[in-house]
Amino acid sequence: MADYIEGKRPIIEALRTNVPVKRVLLADNVKRDPLIEDILRKAKRFDVPVDNVPRKKLDDLSERGSHQGVMAETKPFSYVNVTTVLEEAEKSAAEHGGRALVVMLDHITDAGNLGAVARSAESVGAAGIVIPNKRAAHVTAATYKSSAGAISHLPVTQVSNLVQAMDRFKENGFWVAGASEHAEGLVWEANLKGKIVLVMGNEGEGLSRIVQDNCDFLVKLPQVGEVSSLNVAQASTACMYEWLRQNQVPSA
Amino acid sequence: MADYIEGKRPIIEALRTNVPVKRVLLADNVKRDPLIEDILRKAKRFDVPVDNVPRKKLDDLSERGSHQGVMAETKPFSYVNVTTVLEEAEKSAAEHGGRALVVMLDHITDAGNLGAVARSAESVGAAGIVIPNKRAAHVTAATYKSSAGAISHLPVTQVSNLVQAMDRFKENGFWVAGASEHAEGLVWEANLKGKIVLVMGNEGEGLSRIVQDNCDFLVKLPQVGEVSSLNVAQASTACMYEWLRQNQVPSA
Repeated sequence: MADYIEGKRPIIEALRTNVPVKRVLLADNVKRDPLIEDILRKAKRFDVPVDNVPRKKLDDLSERGSHQGVMAETKPFSYVNVTTVLEEAEKSAAEHGGRALVVMLDHITDAGNLGAVARSAESVGAAGIVIPNKRAAHVTAATYKSSAGAISHLPVTQVSNLVQAMDRFKENGFWVAGASEHAEGLVWEANLKGKIVLVMGNEGEGLSRIVQDNCDFLVKLPQVGEVSSLNVAQASTACMYEWLRQNQVPSA
Repeated sequence: MADYIEGKRPIIEALRTNVPVKRVLLADNVKRDPLIEDILRKAKRFDVPVDNVPRKKLDDLSERGSHQGVMAETKPFSYVNVTTVLEEAEKSAAEHGGRALVVMLDHITDAGNLGAVARSAESVGAAGIVIPNKRAAHVTAATYKSSAGAISHLPVTQVSNLVQAMDRFKENGFWVAGASEHAEGLVWEANLKGKIVLVMGNEGEGLSRIVQDNCDFLVKLPQVGEVSSLNVAQASTACMYEWLRQNQVPSA
């Protein structure tokens, strides 16, 4: 399943931010304005082939009807399997005094949020991300953008069953912590030392019942304000840094 | 100085997310499609006047030439003065065992980042935000959107001189902590107890030299990954929650 980026400025932005583009599709009757020239220049620089196609083909491929005579086909993201994330986590534990973090996203639907979570995850040295392979955001151009490229440096696995994946990590000595407003204890009061799977719920409903029931424990961030709604990327950033804090090796 | 939102979908989004809209300007020759009908319906529901104007007027007002026959004028944001933020902070300290947080942004340039910072700040119970009145993002429709409305619940002050504002807070018993990669100590090792001004640098260069020199101390977040670049909203979220953690009143 290929993902396409439509329109001049989005394609320029994608090439600029290192979204892996397989090829650029250019309508044979497109007007060579400065933006198109910029796309051609960037495609050349990054060794991306440019195919001239009938405009009708773009009309057929376009989801939003905003292709402006140019589309870009992105390379499929290379997902890994759970075993690879586990191996990365064990490597992290070996190198960092026993600490390892895996982030599991329970049906996040926004590809940009996935990227923002990846950016923070990469920053704390997480070993990988686990996402469902259905009814959830996967890695798209929006993910590359909001991750500021971090998504390319982080193993991501798509699984058909989150609970089975949780079991797999539990069998390997991980504790599974679910972030939920229904938690009794604050994230600071929980023991996040060592090998942790941090499970974040989706944007609207939080953790699903079955995922929540299978967590070893739940944690919550206090929200003191009146509006009180961190988005999932902000909440996971705060939780991930708390994991790192609890696992820090004192600076000499 | 009025801010305008251009185009059908951005205006629908603005009305939907409670951006304070003063009036809608509709080109007298605009075609009444379903999106325009939706705008008129929402304007009526939220008591926003709709003015019919010559299309030429929209062309003149438009910055991006993407008005599609409709623009919305937003109400100016009501900034407060530094004294109001100070008073809010003292109230917070009195109510919450002596803790108060003020966030100062050293020339953040992206209005969306300003909103994302506001969202986290409101969530930890910050007393207000201090921004410069020049060469820095101010509150726009993008800020409302990324703050998920939180910006309406948080006093924001625009000042002509950040160092003078820092002095004002210092005189009132605040410690000024600057977030900087040049810090020697990690944010967890710093003492963030009590009344704190947290200063975050701008997206590109971080803290300016003079602001950094006037901080009482600097703190940094460890960045373990290879890409290692949290954005300013994520970094401030992690720092703000660390402030809250150090100042928590034990539950029960």
